[in-house]
Amino acid sequence: MNMEKTIKAGIVGGTGYTGVELMRLLLGHPHVEIACVTSRTDAGKSIATIYPHLTDLLDLAFIEPEIETLGSCDVVFFATPHGIALEMSQPLLEQGVLVIDLSPDFRLKDIVCWEHWYGQKHTQPELLKTAVYGLPEVNRKAISSASLIACPGCYPTAVQLGFLPLLEAGLVDLGELIADVKSGVSGAGRKAAISGLMSESGEGVKAYAASGHRHLPEIVAGLEAVTGETVGLTFVPHLMPMIRGIHATLYSKLTTKISLSEIQAIYQQRYVDESFVTVLPVNSHPDSQDVRMSNRCQIAIHQPQGAEVIVVLSVIDNLVKGAAGQAVQNMNLMFGYAETAGLDSIACYP
Amino acid sequence: MNMEKTIKAGIVGGTGYTGVELMRLLLGHPHVEIACVTSRTDAGKSIATIYPHLTDLLDLAFIEPEIETLGSCDVVFFATPHGIALEMSQPLLEQGVLVIDLSPDFRLKDIVCWEHWYGQKHTQPELLKTAVYGLPEVNRKAISSASLIACPGCYPTAVQLGFLPLLEAGLVDLGELIADVKSGVSGAGRKAAISGLMSESGEGVKAYAASGHRHLPEIVAGLEAVTGETVGLTFVPHLMPMIRGIHATLYSKLTTKISLSEIQAIYQQRYVDESFVTVLPVNSHPDSQDVRMSNRCQIAIHQPQGAEVIVVLSVIDNLVKGAAGQAVQNMNLMFGYAETAGLDSIACYP
Amino acid sequence: MNMEKTIKAGIVGGTGYTGVELMRLLLGHPHVEIACVTSRTDAGKSIATIYPHLTDLLDLAFIEPEIETLGSCDVVFFATPHGIALEMSQPLLEQGVLVIDLSPDFRLKDIVCWEHWYGQKHTQPELLKTAVYGLPEVNRKAISSASLIACPGCYPTAVQLGFLPLLEAGLVDLGELIADVKSGVSGAGRKAAISGLMSESGEGVKAYAASGHRHLPEIVAGLEAVTGETVGLTFVPHLMPMIRGIHATLYSKLTTKISLSEIQAIYQQRYVDESFVTVLPVNSHPDSQDVRMSNRCQIAIHQPQGAEVIVVLSVIDNLVKGAAGQAVQNMNLMFGYAETAGLDSIACYP
Amino acid sequence: MNMEKTIKAGIVGGTGYTGVELMRLLLGHPHVEIACVTSRTDAGKSIATIYPHLTDLLDLAFIEPEIETLGSCDVVFFATPHGIALEMSQPLLEQGVLVIDLSPDFRLKDIVCWEHWYGQKHTQPELLKTAVYGLPEVNRKAISSASLIACPGCYPTAVQLGFLPLLEAGLVDLGELIADVKSGVSGAGRKAAISGLMSESGEGVKAYAASGHRHLPEIVAGLEAVTGETVGLTFVPHLMPMIRGIHATLYSKLTTKISLSEIQAIYQQRYVDESFVTVLPVNSHPDSQDVRMSNRCQIAIHQPQGAEVIVVLSVIDNLVKGAAGQAVQNMNLMFGYAETAGLDSIACYP
Repeated sequence: MNMEKTIKAGIVGGTGYTGVELMRLLLGHPHVEIACVTSRTDAGKSIATIYPHLTDLLDLAFIEPEIETLGSCDVVFFATPHGIALEMSQPLLEQGVLVIDLSPDFRLKDIVCWEHWYGQKHTQPELLKTAVYGLPEVNRKAISSASLIACPGCYPTAVQLGFLPLLEAGLVDLGELIADVKSGVSGAGRKAAISGLMSESGEGVKAYAASGHRHLPEIVAGLEAVTGETVGLTFVPHLMPMIRGIHATLYSKLTTKISLSEIQAIYQQRYVDESFVTVLPVNSHPDSQDVRMSNRCQIAIHQPQGAEVIVVLSVIDNLVKGAAGQAVQNMNLMFGYAETAGLDSIACYP
Repeated sequence: MNMEKTIKAGIVGGTGYTGVELMRLLLGHPHVEIACVTSRTDAGKSIATIYPHLTDLLDLAFIEPEIETLGSCDVVFFATPHGIALEMSQPLLEQGVLVIDLSPDFRLKDIVCWEHWYGQKHTQPELLKTAVYGLPEVNRKAISSASLIACPGCYPTAVQLGFLPLLEAGLVDLGELIADVKSGVSGAGRKAAISGLMSESGEGVKAYAASGHRHLPEIVAGLEAVTGETVGLTFVPHLMPMIRGIHATLYSKLTTKISLSEIQAIYQQRYVDESFVTVLPVNSHPDSQDVRMSNRCQIAIHQPQGAEVIVVLSVIDNLVKGAAGQAVQNMNLMFGYAETAGLDSIACYP
Repeated sequence: MNMEKTIKAGIVGGTGYTGVELMRLLLGHPHVEIACVTSRTDAGKSIATIYPHLTDLLDLAFIEPEIETLGSCDVVFFATPHGIALEMSQPLLEQGVLVIDLSPDFRLKDIVCWEHWYGQKHTQPELLKTAVYGLPEVNRKAISSASLIACPGCYPTAVQLGFLPLLEAGLVDLGELIADVKSGVSGAGRKAAISGLMSESGEGVKAYAASGHRHLPEIVAGLEAVTGETVGLTFVPHLMPMIRGIHATLYSKLTTKISLSEIQAIYQQRYVDESFVTVLPVNSHPDSQDVRMSNRCQIAIHQPQGAEVIVVLSVIDNLVKGAAGQAVQNMNLMFGYAETAGLDSIACYP
Repeated sequence: MNMEKTIKAGIVGGTGYTGVELMRLLLGHPHVEIACVTSRTDAGKSIATIYPHLTDLLDLAFIEPEIETLGSCDVVFFATPHGIALEMSQPLLEQGVLVIDLSPDFRLKDIVCWEHWYGQKHTQPELLKTAVYGLPEVNRKAISSASLIACPGCYPTAVQLGFLPLLEAGLVDLGELIADVKSGVSGAGRKAAISGLMSESGEGVKAYAASGHRHLPEIVAGLEAVTGETVGLTFVPHLMPMIRGIHATLYSKLTTKISLSEIQAIYQQRYVDESFVTVLPVNSHPDSQDVRMSNRCQIAIHQPQGAEVIVVLSVIDNLVKGAAGQAVQNMNLMFGYAETAGLDSIACYP
């Protein structure tokens, strides 16, 4: 398979956890060469200085994020805070570079909503129309021919993959969905903040943004796109004392009479051809550890006391299937590679 | 206050986490002397051999659990698996010993239900009738005059304290309650099991018993006792990669029009005289770390997007307010001590 | 004992881990009232806002650090970075306030050395002469009559308590001491830094400052004060993925023929009257968890393969015996209280 | 490269952490097919039942460990407690199967010493003579032509790689070596034991076997094989609250005048051709997290205060370079594959 041509990839925003995870995955990808990695704060420094685990593996220095250099890449990934890809994508696309944006800049089609949650003006309404939401399990075909991908957030990935089969099959009350989601601390990024200190977060659990989180409108939009109906979702994210992993516990109310084994069959059928989604046997309890470092999502379904509430458990690694891995999966689709290329790393257990 | 007489306490089942936490609290109690601690497996061994942190602090050896010795105590705590207090309580009560049972043996008034969940015959139906459910915030008066206390489980404590004001005020749909609860691993006890190894549970989150957990009927019974109506609850416990702490995230649906600040006022009023329940300001996010090692419960209330779902966050330390601390609180009430005696240790932060 | 008069205590630098640990201990102290807590950054804010675990327990707001207010206290603790106590102690002492400095400002009698390691001028050479090094196990008598205490650092406490009996007895080669010390991350303080993030420090171990750490000269000075001879020490601190605790592994070479049981007897004799130092049986392995949240030090001694290297294991909680607890122990001595007053909290296990 | 023939591998002892790590590595190896995995306790069960992270990745059931089945493999790995490979290796070798033993059965050439530490008779003295100690950085050539490999233990790997250049160059006092080594809890294996519970080991550090550990004679034998002289080593292992990783802190005393930069040059020269050993710049502090999940060893050298003690810091992943990865590296050498085949996974950061 090494006979296929190799492409050059650029990474904008290389000093965050998403950026460095992209480096890990792309270094192991059979068809990609990392051409450049940008960092405003660390430009000029050797990448191995900041990330000693890449010593002897990636012999590059961070560079300033400049369109000219990035323009020579085949694909550019944005692993940046919101607002950067917004401005830099257009000039890159004009040079024929494919853009995969891991930031939220093109995730919401509703500009008013985006501007409300991100507190700034969305300057690229035309570009936004062309952006494809990069959840391959929903948009595979559109992704394949897209030039600008908006990669889903970590929470939205876990929640949507868990809810989709139920909603597509029209089995539950769309007005009363609940997503209680637990995340490792790497989701908060690699930035100096007291709240992220191990002393603060190493032995406690807490919810945050319970009254409203930026991923809420993204999840709702994703679910509404699938159902074509209005969705009412309560979404409460929590911070867990671990580094990687997301565990979504999803509650919904059946509106029709159907057995658990029938629901299980619907899930298995829905994901039978998906390389990265595993439906575990009925009554399993997926462990976020079992997908750590891998691009996989594991899902299990419960019907407590045989009542009308269906509980779906969905786990991913927030930095892989919830970010860098999914971005690479999108890239594979865009370039016609095997969808699993470079994504075969097995979960870190124990 | 040291003028009040000192009582003798016995602990049955001293080699578990609940038992050793009782030792910590009783050693610091102004009116209690630990007279004996039993352990079938470690009888004869110095307690400090098994628990080196008690070296120089508790100069006793474990003894066999015998009624004769225990009968000379004023109060006996059972920190045992189910089935032990069931058989040993009656003879102790007959000798005038007060019994505080931290096991589930007397928590459910419904014998059929108890036998279903615990898989054995309940041999003490008469005794069960006299047992008082030891949640002081609900049953303070009955506790004061009881001779046999059934201490609530850890999950039931966090969930009931969180839900009570909403339910007592009749504000929410009793048929659709959801409790998504996260616990530290000490809740699984001090027993050799692969699932409890740090390698297995140190970097992952998982639900367990999602289809049915023994604490479910206890919570439902507690809520029904307060409301006098049938309660429908979905309860999903999760294991967190931390040692101590419970975080309950509670979802319910308003059936009446009421503002968040009014709900907040109801909560504050409900717990204004409670020494161990703190209602945080609206939109707070209690951290389980902030009650670690203390007997406190912290609660906060949210109304995401101003919709009809109310989210209550409730945190406790599973070994203190969820077990040993609550047991001591019950003891204080039974002996007429200040309810807070021996329970003033402040949370371990950081 | 409550008949003794109560004193007023001030804390300068209340927003760090040492400061908040002082609050925990002083809130539980029978003779102390916390009169004021200063914080430049959070002045005006309620303490419970910053530290929710103190909600309902300490009803104060942070104030600016001003001599006038602090001057009305009986004792002032400095839980500050270096350089603050240096300037503020003199005016407080002049007003009759006793000063207990948890910072390094008065730990080194050698001004040149201090200025070398702390990179600033030591402006108080006269005051330095009067300061007493607050290690009660060595300086109890001097502490009792001191007005300015320099509390030992966390590493120096664990290392000195471990080495002292060997060195006082003249048993080992003073030129070849090695202290390999492991610390929890709270030792790095409550400050926003990428290196302290849980993502960075939650699943790895690393040494730091192996070529030279500020606590090295303090340890050496302490050991030289006891032996009266030049000491050669190699000191390598390490960061562990845990919050609290220090484990010192100390290596030294016997210069005389003596059996392990004789050494054990020397240690037991040395600490027989010490309330906070426990010598475990020969060949024990103290666990830092067994002193977490307590003011205790546990020590054990080994002689691997019966050879000439003696290995001493010494554990403390860096925030208690290594900081705030030791400061309170010093205060107790200065005010004639029982040395253990307010210091009876038992280790957090599990 | 896929044109080279594929070999069949068997794993004896598949339910431990070393066994499952072998599965991860071999599943990603370009020339190996996992033919069978044995487990006495779980024979008949699907591997994915025990290890859900391998769902959809390895479709095998555990089998009984029988020579007949194993005899059809090209290579058999023993990931077993001591005593198993001892008995099963000879019949496999007779059938032409290459054997890579990750247990200690063939690590010590001195039978008396082996029997002392492992408490059983060594029944295969002739076989022991043919076994090659599988540390490729020392024995690469012998490994290539061996049929029975004794893979080094995790501690011995980290310690030997750290000490070797110093000792080979004859720079330090061989009688006074000290290895203070810190290990994650996965080193204790996947067996039900209270001491391994997260509640017991999640927030504390402790030494163990300080008076003598089975890896001591192995390390000494390895160092003596290289130096040809008697080596005196003090070795103290410690348990860290993390899952994977070893950090060795090595102390030795220079016997000759040499600068730190000269020592650094010696290290760099020693390992310049090694794919899995990285010598970091002088005064670096390798983090065990930076080699987690990888087969790499990172080393850094310090000379505190320019004195005669040299401190070498050496980190590996105990399950990879300390076990399964090194075993695969040996296999690659034995079969003439690229030494790095299947071993390119990059460290898990964060």
